[in-house]
Amino acid sequence: MARVGVLTSGGDCPGLNAVIRAVVRRGERHWGDDLVGFHDGWAGVIEGRWQALDVEAMRGYLARGGTMLGTSRVHPWMTDDGVERARATLLDVGLDALIVIGGEGSLATAHRAHTEGIVPVVGVPKTIDNDIPCTEQTFGFDTAVSIATEAIDRLHTTAESHDRVMVVEVMGRHVGHIATWAGIAGGATVTLVPEHPFDIAAVADIVRKRHERGRYASIVVVAEGARPAPGTMELAEPEVDRFGHKRLGGIGMVVASEIEQRTGYETRVTVLGHVQRGGSPTAYDRVLSSRYGVASIDAVHEGGLGDMVALQAGLITCVPLADVMGHLKTVDDRLWDVANALFEARLDGRPPASADSESASP
Amino acid sequence: MARVGVLTSGGDCPGLNAVIRAVVRRGERHWGDDLVGFHDGWAGVIEGRWQALDVEAMRGYLARGGTMLGTSRVHPWMTDDGVERARATLLDVGLDALIVIGGEGSLATAHRAHTEGIVPVVGVPKTIDNDIPCTEQTFGFDTAVSIATEAIDRLHTTAESHDRVMVVEVMGRHVGHIATWAGIAGGATVTLVPEHPFDIAAVADIVRKRHERGRYASIVVVAEGARPAPGTMELAEPEVDRFGHKRLGGIGMVVASEIEQRTGYETRVTVLGHVQRGGSPTAYDRVLSSRYGVASIDAVHEGGLGDMVALQAGLITCVPLADVMGHLKTVDDRLWDVANALFEARLDGRPPASADSESASP
Amino acid sequence: MARVGVLTSGGDCPGLNAVIRAVVRRGERHWGDDLVGFHDGWAGVIEGRWQALDVEAMRGYLARGGTMLGTSRVHPWMTDDGVERARATLLDVGLDALIVIGGEGSLATAHRAHTEGIVPVVGVPKTIDNDIPCTEQTFGFDTAVSIATEAIDRLHTTAESHDRVMVVEVMGRHVGHIATWAGIAGGATVTLVPEHPFDIAAVADIVRKRHERGRYASIVVVAEGARPAPGTMELAEPEVDRFGHKRLGGIGMVVASEIEQRTGYETRVTVLGHVQRGGSPTAYDRVLSSRYGVASIDAVHEGGLGDMVALQAGLITCVPLADVMGHLKTVDDRLWDVANALFEARLDGRPPASADSESASP
Amino acid sequence: MARVGVLTSGGDCPGLNAVIRAVVRRGERHWGDDLVGFHDGWAGVIEGRWQALDVEAMRGYLARGGTMLGTSRVHPWMTDDGVERARATLLDVGLDALIVIGGEGSLATAHRAHTEGIVPVVGVPKTIDNDIPCTEQTFGFDTAVSIATEAIDRLHTTAESHDRVMVVEVMGRHVGHIATWAGIAGGATVTLVPEHPFDIAAVADIVRKRHERGRYASIVVVAEGARPAPGTMELAEPEVDRFGHKRLGGIGMVVASEIEQRTGYETRVTVLGHVQRGGSPTAYDRVLSSRYGVASIDAVHEGGLGDMVALQAGLITCVPLADVMGHLKTVDDRLWDVANALFEARLDGRPPASADSESASP
Repeated sequence: MARVGVLTSGGDCPGLNAVIRAVVRRGERHWGDDLVGFHDGWAGVIEGRWQALDVEAMRGYLARGGTMLGTSRVHPWMTDDGVERARATLLDVGLDALIVIGGEGSLATAHRAHTEGIVPVVGVPKTIDNDIPCTEQTFGFDTAVSIATEAIDRLHTTAESHDRVMVVEVMGRHVGHIATWAGIAGGATVTLVPEHPFDIAAVADIVRKRHERGRYASIVVVAEGARPAPGTMELAEPEVDRFGHKRLGGIGMVVASEIEQRTGYETRVTVLGHVQRGGSPTAYDRVLSSRYGVASIDAVHEGGLGDMVALQAGLITCVPLADVMGHLKTVDDRLWDVANALFEARLDGRPPASADSESASP
Repeated sequence: MARVGVLTSGGDCPGLNAVIRAVVRRGERHWGDDLVGFHDGWAGVIEGRWQALDVEAMRGYLARGGTMLGTSRVHPWMTDDGVERARATLLDVGLDALIVIGGEGSLATAHRAHTEGIVPVVGVPKTIDNDIPCTEQTFGFDTAVSIATEAIDRLHTTAESHDRVMVVEVMGRHVGHIATWAGIAGGATVTLVPEHPFDIAAVADIVRKRHERGRYASIVVVAEGARPAPGTMELAEPEVDRFGHKRLGGIGMVVASEIEQRTGYETRVTVLGHVQRGGSPTAYDRVLSSRYGVASIDAVHEGGLGDMVALQAGLITCVPLADVMGHLKTVDDRLWDVANALFEARLDGRPPASADSESASP
Repeated sequence: MARVGVLTSGGDCPGLNAVIRAVVRRGERHWGDDLVGFHDGWAGVIEGRWQALDVEAMRGYLARGGTMLGTSRVHPWMTDDGVERARATLLDVGLDALIVIGGEGSLATAHRAHTEGIVPVVGVPKTIDNDIPCTEQTFGFDTAVSIATEAIDRLHTTAESHDRVMVVEVMGRHVGHIATWAGIAGGATVTLVPEHPFDIAAVADIVRKRHERGRYASIVVVAEGARPAPGTMELAEPEVDRFGHKRLGGIGMVVASEIEQRTGYETRVTVLGHVQRGGSPTAYDRVLSSRYGVASIDAVHEGGLGDMVALQAGLITCVPLADVMGHLKTVDDRLWDVANALFEARLDGRPPASADSESASP
Repeated sequence: MARVGVLTSGGDCPGLNAVIRAVVRRGERHWGDDLVGFHDGWAGVIEGRWQALDVEAMRGYLARGGTMLGTSRVHPWMTDDGVERARATLLDVGLDALIVIGGEGSLATAHRAHTEGIVPVVGVPKTIDNDIPCTEQTFGFDTAVSIATEAIDRLHTTAESHDRVMVVEVMGRHVGHIATWAGIAGGATVTLVPEHPFDIAAVADIVRKRHERGRYASIVVVAEGARPAPGTMELAEPEVDRFGHKRLGGIGMVVASEIEQRTGYETRVTVLGHVQRGGSPTAYDRVLSSRYGVASIDAVHEGGLGDMVALQAGLITCVPLADVMGHLKTVDDRLWDVANALFEARLDGRPPASADSESASP
């Protein structure tokens, strides 16, 4: 029996409520814990805003998107007195441990809070980008891929009806997991990811060859963080409007303009944006979130403080938060090779994979 | 028994294949017709590109988005010899009538072709915008509204989790049907449509008041053709990039920037774009498309040449194409009043409806 | 300003919460009403179980299936003291009017309560079956058709992969609206409805002929109330298990068995059951529900007591409840003719429609 | 460069076409293979029915359910001359290897064909049941879980509106993977699986306690192969109708009747049936199928003959078909413990997990 807090930090992600619900059900019923939820991430810890959580309070939240606790990107080290105020709240609430559900930055903050003795933590890896190391998958990723794939399915019919090129910009500032999966699932012609800088001339060439073979419709999936290879294309600074916002349609718009200019085919761009991170989680994400939630409260009681729960080989386990810090999980080369086998052609100038194929026998 | 052609013209629209399939099934089986499909709209008529259609050729197309015949915005009067070439093809194919599935512009072209004796036509009203007069609904509209509503559902959770304003730009250059329906179905705070120029100060005010009451999340739906009321806000010319394209994010981006500046609340914009017009049609649109298809080939045989098929009071009927020309169907005032009752507040400065309420007893 | 009650009665139906929400938003904000919700339909009136409703209480309910008020099939005339107890509650609550959201039976009860002076009522037509007269559509129907169509889409692929006949039993005890619409939208081979008793030999014949032409997969949609024409097939009494329940799989199972026996093709049956009536309403149903809700509270204030709100020619209007009583709306003959043009063949022995075609010009 | 055949065998499963497409794209473009598809599984091999496959022939199949090649449960050893005829076809076609996409039985047949020297094979694990050993997941499973979860979501609202118990029978004759995942994702009260025989008295007890705490709606998920523990309940022989079919509604119907009888609460049953195995695959299944397809044709060229492709620790690898034979993968105890933590209570009489928790730190 313990007094355990939970908070959600960083961007919205389908499955947050399912994690909280699982923490509460397992904590209350199995371990006899008192559960406490902080509002708006670390902001609630700093400002002393929280609520008691019990099984009843979680009714109906399993399938609901968003987070019933609210979230923010605030953390204690952002202001002079943040740490002090957080300590005061934690003392006041009398926490034995804090479960932090967050992405890379939030887990780093959690790790720091743990190592600096502010509060013992357990981390739960949350990001639609799937870029957290030491775990095969983060919750929210499957939902984001599903939404992006459904959008690509819809764009296919317009591309075919109009003999057009459709460029779809998906999330992925630093890694191309969503782009790679949605590109495979949506039957993209080409997919551009941050891990493999692209040559726009090669992209245009693939589209042109497709056209010349008699297929006029092409789908190009672009991760928002995809960038041209050095020396291949000049990228203007993003335009900033009068209120300081960068204009919508970064790299997707650039790629679309270049393809249209270089090939002469009508090209349209769609920026999926926030629809990728909202709404009810897929069944897969609800299960993964629920397993993470149970595992995180178990970790509190079974020596897992300072750890992050993780999916490895189909089972949930714990890894030290320290191992997770400082690097991102990029798209595996073997998956990328497989993806390229299904796209229209590979783009990165590397020889076709064979010896290093994902499917090589042991 | 007749030789009847069919073509799809204008933008992609869910249900096109379902119309063609119904024309073919009814024509072949009930009337014993020969059916012919022209490729890429009028382009196929001008350039003599067409194919025979039969029940077998239509297998599997009922639920598929796009158009198996292709589409374009070409018409005979666009070039010097267009009409002449179209006549030549029609003579060559030996058509008795042509079924034109298209939006406002395409129906006008069809009407002209009919009145100038180029070919007897029957029109089928197609547009996701639902702005064609004399018919209660066009096919494709229900699917577009469904997609927009699903997106709004997803954005709600992010808005709530982050205490944000989310602006969603939906299609509707001249009319606000999609915005009004999706705004009602998605539970929007405010919806802006071309029919009712808006005062951005009033919009910001509604959002601010909501915030002050303790609700921080607002969804603002904006039709792409919505415009500020004269004298309320200066609208910059759309920026044009180096390839001559207008930058993504027209009015939606402007509205979002203004709300953020005027209220101080974090505001994000999503431009749904082409996903609204692609993919498998809803059940409703499949039924409506099928009924239109049957009715259009029946009209060929039952004195409906020169007419457009239409939905009136739940039944399919025919109206002269001449009656359809030259005006757009805007959002009915009584529906708009109902919508405003459900939004957070009305925006157009008119007194609250009561005597003119949609629900007034007869 | 008035004190207005609302209750939901009869079977679950997508859109119930959307109606209640619209009543409350319009009532509170436009008319300054006090709103009261009774629990579990008339049971709450009889037993004095109710709650106050305001805009805040309705947050998040627009898209949610089911009814936040609960429902039942109870009514005041079911027990000796029901009427007396209902009167007592209504007096106690001090109601000016009661909005009854229900199907055929519930509206009849509402009408009786109105005419016997128990409470002035306004009715809102609710049924997934779409069989209420005087209105073109009831809310919940579009969602039910969507769900049935999605199921048929899935069954198609199995039917095709295995060269099978798939029989799908959908709801519709007295009328075939769901079956007809889902049959058209799903591309059924044959659809059987209560309005047109079927000859199983003709059904088997259609399936056999399809098979002989080289298409082995057939989908047969059966409304649960479909019945064989007199003299064509003997129908055993439904089996009743030891607890008095009729065994699942009534007419669908019989039709499947007969087709398999008569044709020799492998045949499977799926009974969709309650999934057709639950879950989040479609965008169409959310809009229709919202419009009905606004219209019903407007009717309270604008002389519509004793009326039912209705959809006619795309607009919401009011009709006397008395006109609605005593008959069901069946599938229109002209729609049925259209449907048969799209199915593999007509089944009812009538000559093919032409003069009476739905698409006849005026 | 090789001549490689592919066939699909056993029940329909979402993702079959995606596997075939990936085999063809990788084979033709990367390895320069000739690809051949046999019709209706082994039936096509025995009867010499097949077609050439190339990239062009596979257009549009990625997202389509079913199998473009057809499937059956036939195999060469079912008839006297099956093996001989299969050999003759294979000789005639001149195959170097055969990729068999199938479930447990089909893979056993494939293994036998390989070891008896009929044709060198590579297996691809296909089953919505996810019960094939040596691989963490089979394609089709994620789609089946998604469909079942969506149905449960819908049934929740009816259960809540009517204070009912809803029993949902899902697929899983020998294992409870679908039931367990859908039970977690759908927020089931209790889930019954073949791996853990149930005590119906305990099930009724959980439902009754829930009711007494004031929650009247319960969802009970039942795998079709779930069985009562010895001595707890007598199970009647399934009724067989006059055509030799077992009556629909096996264990789900029994469980529903018993719950209603023992608790007095209204209980309804839904048998999901074939909708679980048809239709477009989820994004996850499209990716998994595509990876399996690429890996299987790679295995043909890289020493993987006699192997099955498998998912292990997030990567695709190969395992000897021999290792796969003769046993089924059941639901992991640690996952089952997690599931029970989220259900209303555990049913199998075992003490609550803690030491053996899935989340135990290493």
